[in-house]
Amino acid sequence: MEREHFSATFDTELDELRSMLLAMGGKVEMMISGSVKALVERDTPLADRIIAMDHEVNNLEVNIDERCLELLALRQPAARDLRFITLALKIVTDLERIGDQCTNIAKRAKELNAEPQLKPYIDIPRMAHWTEVMVKESLDSFVHGDDDLAIKVCNDDNFVDEINEQIHRELLTFMIEDSSTISRSMKLNYVAKSLERIADHATNIAEMVIFMVKGKDIRHTIA
Amino acid sequence: MEREHFSATFDTELDELRSMLLAMGGKVEMMISGSVKALVERDTPLADRIIAMDHEVNNLEVNIDERCLELLALRQPAARDLRFITLALKIVTDLERIGDQCTNIAKRAKELNAEPQLKPYIDIPRMAHWTEVMVKESLDSFVHGDDDLAIKVCNDDNFVDEINEQIHRELLTFMIEDSSTISRSMKLNYVAKSLERIADHATNIAEMVIFMVKGKDIRHTIA
Repeated sequence: MEREHFSATFDTELDELRSMLLAMGGKVEMMISGSVKALVERDTPLADRIIAMDHEVNNLEVNIDERCLELLALRQPAARDLRFITLALKIVTDLERIGDQCTNIAKRAKELNAEPQLKPYIDIPRMAHWTEVMVKESLDSFVHGDDDLAIKVCNDDNFVDEINEQIHRELLTFMIEDSSTISRSMKLNYVAKSLERIADHATNIAEMVIFMVKGKDIRHTIA
Repeated sequence: MEREHFSATFDTELDELRSMLLAMGGKVEMMISGSVKALVERDTPLADRIIAMDHEVNNLEVNIDERCLELLALRQPAARDLRFITLALKIVTDLERIGDQCTNIAKRAKELNAEPQLKPYIDIPRMAHWTEVMVKESLDSFVHGDDDLAIKVCNDDNFVDEINEQIHRELLTFMIEDSSTISRSMKLNYVAKSLERIADHATNIAEMVIFMVKGKDIRHTIA
């Protein structure tokens, strides 16, 4: 597919858009690891800092949205560039919602930190690590147009779903054996559910990237 | 704000885009009521039909995405029309994910229908009704550029969150009193959580509509 705009300025602008998205991605990746660290290390001040970061992520979303609209209006891009910019518009929405989920995790961490710890957290940090890698790789696949990497992200989602299922089952046995653990178990379950939703956002991004690269839709054919 | 395109054809195309979005909205509204009806009336064949509808919704998403890209490439809209089309691109993503949530509800309904009913379902249908209205009104606010209606949707979300919290607390008491109810309670809780996510999607749409109408961002200032 040919580029309709060869202006160095437009290329620079697209590079800037890429950088803005990666910066926003870096911020939400920090929020993922930070919110789970606040839980695992029972660090409530860290949870508060993560909650405060949500505002910055929201501002980044507004800025990137506006930049995309400017580029569409002033540069009137076609073909590949058009697809790239419209996809950026969709991706910022996913990134912003990942920030929301991290805020939810940080809030649950604060509640859980105020009670005795139910169990050592092993699977949740593992799930958080995988999820963070998925977010990073989904964005890398976007900025480099790398559909192989995007396919890897989609496959990794199955693994995150498996860990989530495992956490769910383990918490169920806690609750059945001792009803005093139910409230804390439910909160931990919500943390896992939030991580699963973050992984879903990364998968959504990756599926859209595959669409962008291949020019046809496989979003609804990948299992 | 002035329209840069006065062509009757372009106006017709924008009307067609509105109709496509409303048709997709109508489909997901049916999926919301149908998936919850499958639970309440223990109608497993209906749950299967809802799950099968997800494919149609996915196809509608692809078609609307393509139409938006065509309009952006061929019509090179500016100002208000540009904002409208880029917002349509974001909204279809929300609608498609609402379809995914309905599929999740239908799957849980099938599992729950295979077991004795835990309790009469009262709050869940009420929550589903509100959620469906929110989705419908968020789309109406978009196609009519009605920011008052969009603000109503954002406010209604608080009510849905309250019902969700109430369901959550009631299920918690079931689980504490009788551990044999835990598995079913958790599934019902997931149904409520899916409805809450659908309401969140409607709220996201409404917030974006307010942004479109006002031309400034209040997405991150509404409580």
